[in-house]
Amino acid sequence: MIYDVIIIGSGPAGLTAAIYAVRAQLSVLVLEKEYMSGGQMLNTYEVDNYPGLPGIGGFELGVKFREHAEKLGVKFINIEVRHISENAAEHLWVLNTSSEEFRARTVVLAMGAKYSMLGVPGEKELAGMGVSYCATCDGAFFKGGTVAVVGGGDVAAEDALFLARGCEKVYLIHRRDELRAARLLQEQLKACKNVEIIWDSEVMEICGDDQVESIRIRNKKDGSEQSLDLNGVFIAVGTRPNTEIVTKLLQLDKNGYISASEDGITEKPGLFAAGDIRTKRLRQIVTAVSDGANVISSVEAYLNRV
Amino acid sequence: MIYDVIIIGSGPAGLTAAIYAVRAQLSVLVLEKEYMSGGQMLNTYEVDNYPGLPGIGGFELGVKFREHAEKLGVKFINIEVRHISENAAEHLWVLNTSSEEFRARTVVLAMGAKYSMLGVPGEKELAGMGVSYCATCDGAFFKGGTVAVVGGGDVAAEDALFLARGCEKVYLIHRRDELRAARLLQEQLKACKNVEIIWDSEVMEICGDDQVESIRIRNKKDGSEQSLDLNGVFIAVGTRPNTEIVTKLLQLDKNGYISASEDGITEKPGLFAAGDIRTKRLRQIVTAVSDGANVISSVEAYLNRV
Repeated sequence: MIYDVIIIGSGPAGLTAAIYAVRAQLSVLVLEKEYMSGGQMLNTYEVDNYPGLPGIGGFELGVKFREHAEKLGVKFINIEVRHISENAAEHLWVLNTSSEEFRARTVVLAMGAKYSMLGVPGEKELAGMGVSYCATCDGAFFKGGTVAVVGGGDVAAEDALFLARGCEKVYLIHRRDELRAARLLQEQLKACKNVEIIWDSEVMEICGDDQVESIRIRNKKDGSEQSLDLNGVFIAVGTRPNTEIVTKLLQLDKNGYISASEDGITEKPGLFAAGDIRTKRLRQIVTAVSDGANVISSVEAYLNRV
Repeated sequence: MIYDVIIIGSGPAGLTAAIYAVRAQLSVLVLEKEYMSGGQMLNTYEVDNYPGLPGIGGFELGVKFREHAEKLGVKFINIEVRHISENAAEHLWVLNTSSEEFRARTVVLAMGAKYSMLGVPGEKELAGMGVSYCATCDGAFFKGGTVAVVGGGDVAAEDALFLARGCEKVYLIHRRDELRAARLLQEQLKACKNVEIIWDSEVMEICGDDQVESIRIRNKKDGSEQSLDLNGVFIAVGTRPNTEIVTKLLQLDKNGYISASEDGITEKPGLFAAGDIRTKRLRQIVTAVSDGANVISSVEAYLNRV
């Protein structure tokens, strides 16, 4: 069987693309390598910024999205795509897995991204219990508390400014003696009385039972260590897209994301990108669902014209 | 009081912007001229493409969005903005209504758009009961049925192709003897055995009790009339953005929309646009909520740097 569209990944972008594809009467198949759909939502304790479902659990939201797609008749296969190749003569894309081969007229790449981790003790154990990788997502839960932001780029600086508006105290912990963040952001940070920048320091451990209680940091210049009591740690040391299977197929931007605007069109006809995997400023559930709809609009326009 | 951001309009874009703004600890006010929030959703009988809430009523979804924003502490005032002006020296925007004046450092324009109507008997009465302005939104409800699309541009042609995949029969009714739609779309239409183009004709009346049953059309060349039995009528004769208060402030695109990309940034610093009111390909609830989040990200970046 040749599908009109195969969607790789079933986070919010992939699932919305599936919903729009099946409603557009396209033959559609979703390939997901994990046992559950939802992508990064699955690891989110509480989602309070998906309009209409305030305070829902990320896992529950993932299940709701998947059920919505299944209710409309979307077919899923739990399998990992290992290789993508083009059959240009027949305007087809061929997807290989460890066992089966799938063919489609178009492919939507919706494999998402993941946050870079510090790799320190306590980080994994306390993820979602005070350890966060997204101030926009989780900052509001720490109103009135004390938090640390780890990083030195624009995102870290903006996260610290964002958190400083609601938190009593914000530490910004950076391993160097100057920030990479834009100068204007740095000036804003210095003007914030409740932001304290801790230079030349790295996080050694995140501590707490069931909830973050403190972090242990080490000054890289003099080797001294100290412990900071706090309620939350925001890790802003970058993100990495899940682009392994397309690195040889597509041009990626300097951070490794697929260069595509909101229409999801890549430089390869028939190959589209949606959600966190593409170049974009804000990676959120709402921006991913939008990509899912837009990309199917582009798929339809492409199929109507081939 | 000077607000960080005032949002004009409370459809899905404005309400999502409000949710993101309040979670970012910005001082925010939403001004809505209608008694209810929700925008065009309010007139939508059933929404089946907002992931996580399959088959919800549009009115109910509007209420849920508003409640979500209110739960987070967003303040609403039911008032119409008549005039917007810039106080450039103080980096402020001044909004005038019939009674009060409001001031803010930034303004998000989220007044939405409306579909152009045919203006024929039965159209208003049967809206949502077989009369639709959006095939992407409602087409799936007419699977196996007979429908008509009214219009001759790309949208009308794409709607007809979209509907032809699921409907038994699709009439495309156009008042001229050739389509404005792209040639490739026209060829696809001609290749569709279940699409019949009715040239030189206009709809005179949409008929039915509680549900569309037929339409009466008139041939403009010979004056003859006929009646077509069908289940739905898709009107694709254009859309109009609600930009009355900014026509002198901002450059609009050739269709009257505010020229802004997904970041919502306009050519006036501090003035942003989100949702159906801006230049975009696909106007859907999911693309509007994405705009709401993106625009607040742009507002924050602006406020951090002014």
